[in-house]
Amino acid sequence: MKCLKNQPIGIFDSGIGGLTVARSIRKALPGENMIYFGDTARVPYGNKSRDTIIRFACEIVKFLVKKKVKMIVIACNTASSFSLNAIKKIYSGPVIGVISPGVKEAIDVSENGRIGVIGTNSTINSRSYNKEIAKYGPDIKFFSESCPLFVPLVENKFSNDDIAYDVAERYLKELKKKHIDTLILGCTHYPILKKVISSVMNGIKLVDSSSAVAKKVKDVLVKEDLLLSDKRSQGWTRCYVSDDVKGFRVDARIFFKKDISIKKAVL
Amino acid sequence: MKCLKNQPIGIFDSGIGGLTVARSIRKALPGENMIYFGDTARVPYGNKSRDTIIRFACEIVKFLVKKKVKMIVIACNTASSFSLNAIKKIYSGPVIGVISPGVKEAIDVSENGRIGVIGTNSTINSRSYNKEIAKYGPDIKFFSESCPLFVPLVENKFSNDDIAYDVAERYLKELKKKHIDTLILGCTHYPILKKVISSVMNGIKLVDSSSAVAKKVKDVLVKEDLLLSDKRSQGWTRCYVSDDVKGFRVDARIFFKKDISIKKAVL
Repeated sequence: MKCLKNQPIGIFDSGIGGLTVARSIRKALPGENMIYFGDTARVPYGNKSRDTIIRFACEIVKFLVKKKVKMIVIACNTASSFSLNAIKKIYSGPVIGVISPGVKEAIDVSENGRIGVIGTNSTINSRSYNKEIAKYGPDIKFFSESCPLFVPLVENKFSNDDIAYDVAERYLKELKKKHIDTLILGCTHYPILKKVISSVMNGIKLVDSSSAVAKKVKDVLVKEDLLLSDKRSQGWTRCYVSDDVKGFRVDARIFFKKDISIKKAVL
Repeated sequence: MKCLKNQPIGIFDSGIGGLTVARSIRKALPGENMIYFGDTARVPYGNKSRDTIIRFACEIVKFLVKKKVKMIVIACNTASSFSLNAIKKIYSGPVIGVISPGVKEAIDVSENGRIGVIGTNSTINSRSYNKEIAKYGPDIKFFSESCPLFVPLVENKFSNDDIAYDVAERYLKELKKKHIDTLILGCTHYPILKKVISSVMNGIKLVDSSSAVAKKVKDVLVKEDLLLSDKRSQGWTRCYVSDDVKGFRVDARIFFKKDISIKKAVL
């Protein structure tokens, strides 16, 4: 199995946001090799339909399979909401989405059992979080809100701006009345808005699922005997994007906090 | 040439915004048949690269050619900025973009020769408007500003909101100092924000290029002897989108002001 262990972890997102997940995996598993695909030519997914998102996700998975990945991480809430089962049909290795680790983390940290989630229109309308939360029984109370302007605010450099606060106040107004003590950031862009969301949701714990996903990745690799145990060497990260590399390189530093090798790959 | 005259006009945009152009063409030429393609699976184009936009535009043109269109209207400023020449290489009929009609209109209405344009990042960075304006000589002074959050504001129903005013104030702050008397709305979404932009740019004439484009379409059809002169019958409009029809149908009414036949077409 040495060969399989050496193979990279495949991670994908609609664009750049999933690099927050890749970064957590890199932290948790410094020796692993990683291939990241960002579908920047077709970003964003958050207002798009189930069928289209499944089609895009399966095209990306076929690309990652050619790169001989040993597991797949769907580092995008919208893609996780719709395409997990479709991917399992075309890929026989382990597949991890961000929904279930994020929910588990929220259940662990919540004290009053009242949990909120915010995400894109497609994620919230898919009810993927509702279904996952329901597995923990009827005692958990769950509230959700879509915040479709959050991604454009992040992508257009409004993350620390009064306008972002005003938008957050608007979107989170109803959630603030629900007495939740935990809020899942159900979109990989939202950790960049943590300061704004924290300020509006004063005192509420925010769950950024990226570290929970990294933990799950490690658990699965151990269970499947796929963990690269060689801790002496630093693993490599290769990034592919479907649009041009230039703009992505600058923003990638904000999300991944390190320079990475980036290439263009048209699907 | 009767056969050619009966063929539809092909119009395309990254998504829904180009329906404002289609609506103007419908008004100016009620007897013409029209096929509209909205690339809703890959929208928006406004932050994407030249190469990707050219690739998408050429794929759409091939689709429209199969539908036997008699001319092509690029009803999208970003696509017009990059793909006009590439389309002319693969399509032998008349091709019209929105840049040159918009500029001509602005030159006609400006009294002090100081003209502004606002658009997406890609449109403004392409300098397509600068190049077009330069054709009118050095006496015309030209100023531009990219307003990347305007499209998400429109698409997420913030068009008549205080937040849209705040964003507009921010984006237009520098333009307000330039003593322009005319501002080109260099994105097909922006007419939906006319009230907000008017209020911020108090007293300045706004040029929505859609009616100028419709006029140009008519001129070209007359010149090429392609105008459908049968005024007795109302022409049909058929719309294709690359993502699902459902969400598009609701918003199409805001842009086109009428119900239209909409089908999904994966390129």
